[in-house]
Amino acid sequence: HYDELSPVGAHEVIIESPAHVRSLDELGKEPFAAVAHAWQERIVDLQKDFRLLYAAIFRNTGRAAGAQLTHAHSQLIALPFVPREIELEIAAFRAHEALHERCLLCDLLRQEQSGAERVVYENDAFTVFAPYASKVPFELWIVPRRCDARFERISAGERSQLGDAMFTALKKLGRALGNAPLRFDIRTSPLGERAVKSYHWRAELAPVLVPSGSFEGGTGACINPVSPESAAELLRDTLVSG
Amino acid sequence: HYDELSPVGAHEVIIESPAHVRSLDELGKEPFAAVAHAWQERIVDLQKDFRLLYAAIFRNTGRAAGAQLTHAHSQLIALPFVPREIELEIAAFRAHEALHERCLLCDLLRQEQSGAERVVYENDAFTVFAPYASKVPFELWIVPRRCDARFERISAGERSQLGDAMFTALKKLGRALGNAPLRFDIRTSPLGERAVKSYHWRAELAPVLVPSGSFEGGTGACINPVSPESAAELLRDTLVSG
Repeated sequence: HYDELSPVGAHEVIIESPAHVRSLDELGKEPFAAVAHAWQERIVDLQKDFRLLYAAIFRNTGRAAGAQLTHAHSQLIALPFVPREIELEIAAFRAHEALHERCLLCDLLRQEQSGAERVVYENDAFTVFAPYASKVPFELWIVPRRCDARFERISAGERSQLGDAMFTALKKLGRALGNAPLRFDIRTSPLGERAVKSYHWRAELAPVLVPSGSFEGGTGACINPVSPESAAELLRDTLVSG
Repeated sequence: HYDELSPVGAHEVIIESPAHVRSLDELGKEPFAAVAHAWQERIVDLQKDFRLLYAAIFRNTGRAAGAQLTHAHSQLIALPFVPREIELEIAAFRAHEALHERCLLCDLLRQEQSGAERVVYENDAFTVFAPYASKVPFELWIVPRRCDARFERISAGERSQLGDAMFTALKKLGRALGNAPLRFDIRTSPLGERAVKSYHWRAELAPVLVPSGSFEGGTGACINPVSPESAAELLRDTLVSG
């Protein structure tokens, strides 16, 4: 059996554009779908290595969010283990399914769409909303309405819609918050022998407006002084053009 | 049954000294035991309220660590639920005890003391070491050698030793890292009906040298470029005087 502690993995930097921009949204909507395509192709390729059990895709914009290069880029880290946050989420999806025979995030999406007070934007394939238990002010989730555990099964049409949703969300956050540092990541199913059905992939955007302190680190609890309803209202009212 | 979601709790700011200093270690070793006494007395008082199930004690020094006041202070937040990090730790203590019939942190302490390459300082009651799986560079744990789940059962003699250990650890980190922002917190048993025996309280110190990014947030995994052995060696060689 393969040893989880062996030092294997991959770390790739995705240069998002030949143009030296700080953030891809400076170039309009079009490049986003191409970047999503690159992420997809890299996961499809990396999962041929059975030792890699999770691929984390993420982007840090601004120094306080951990960025060390200014040129627009995202990163992929492939790990020989399933990270704790993903394990905990999968356990929650499974518990919900055992009880209700439905997907947790599909249910959450239906609830958000029916009330709509936390929804920021929708297109043909994605809903962008501020989750009711936002961990930080102005946290946004970009959720595909077609339920699929695995990001890498996204279609060409969905990539284009994801590009539109990422562009719109980034642009709205940038305008409303004065280009605050930003964390972005994709949460998706583990790979290979650890792949699951009980999951629903999504992207998360988290502006870094206040440093996280000892309380958050020591407890895992979050102090968020901005309600997701007011964040969503402000972002709905922030107009962007493609 | 009491509803966990009710908005009850307490937030207290402990002013650590009448003198306007940024960090208590500027005043020498003596004030630390008094501050530990204040923490202890506040927990003993707050746990009379059966609705409060955890008391988080912590201190942020420097803006990047979340500090909003410059005058030396620590904080206590009492919660109507047991936070996730503490739940997960208790589960690990219970699993270890079920398997080995011993305390997880007592075993870890024995292991650290026998090798000693990660030990930074010891006095009559506490061992200060860089844990082998340090989450951030120069993370330190201050661990009482008398096993007790609950911080608030500390004796007067132990308070004085804890003061010495906190002062020494803070002073060494400050000298070695140029007064980097610092997070400090105490991990202890939940309160009231959720109190446990399978735990061993400790204090954690975590300098903030690099911002945590999307990878850490999205996975719960940590990237630490400094080995705890080199951190401990540097800190052992950093001399302080009381």
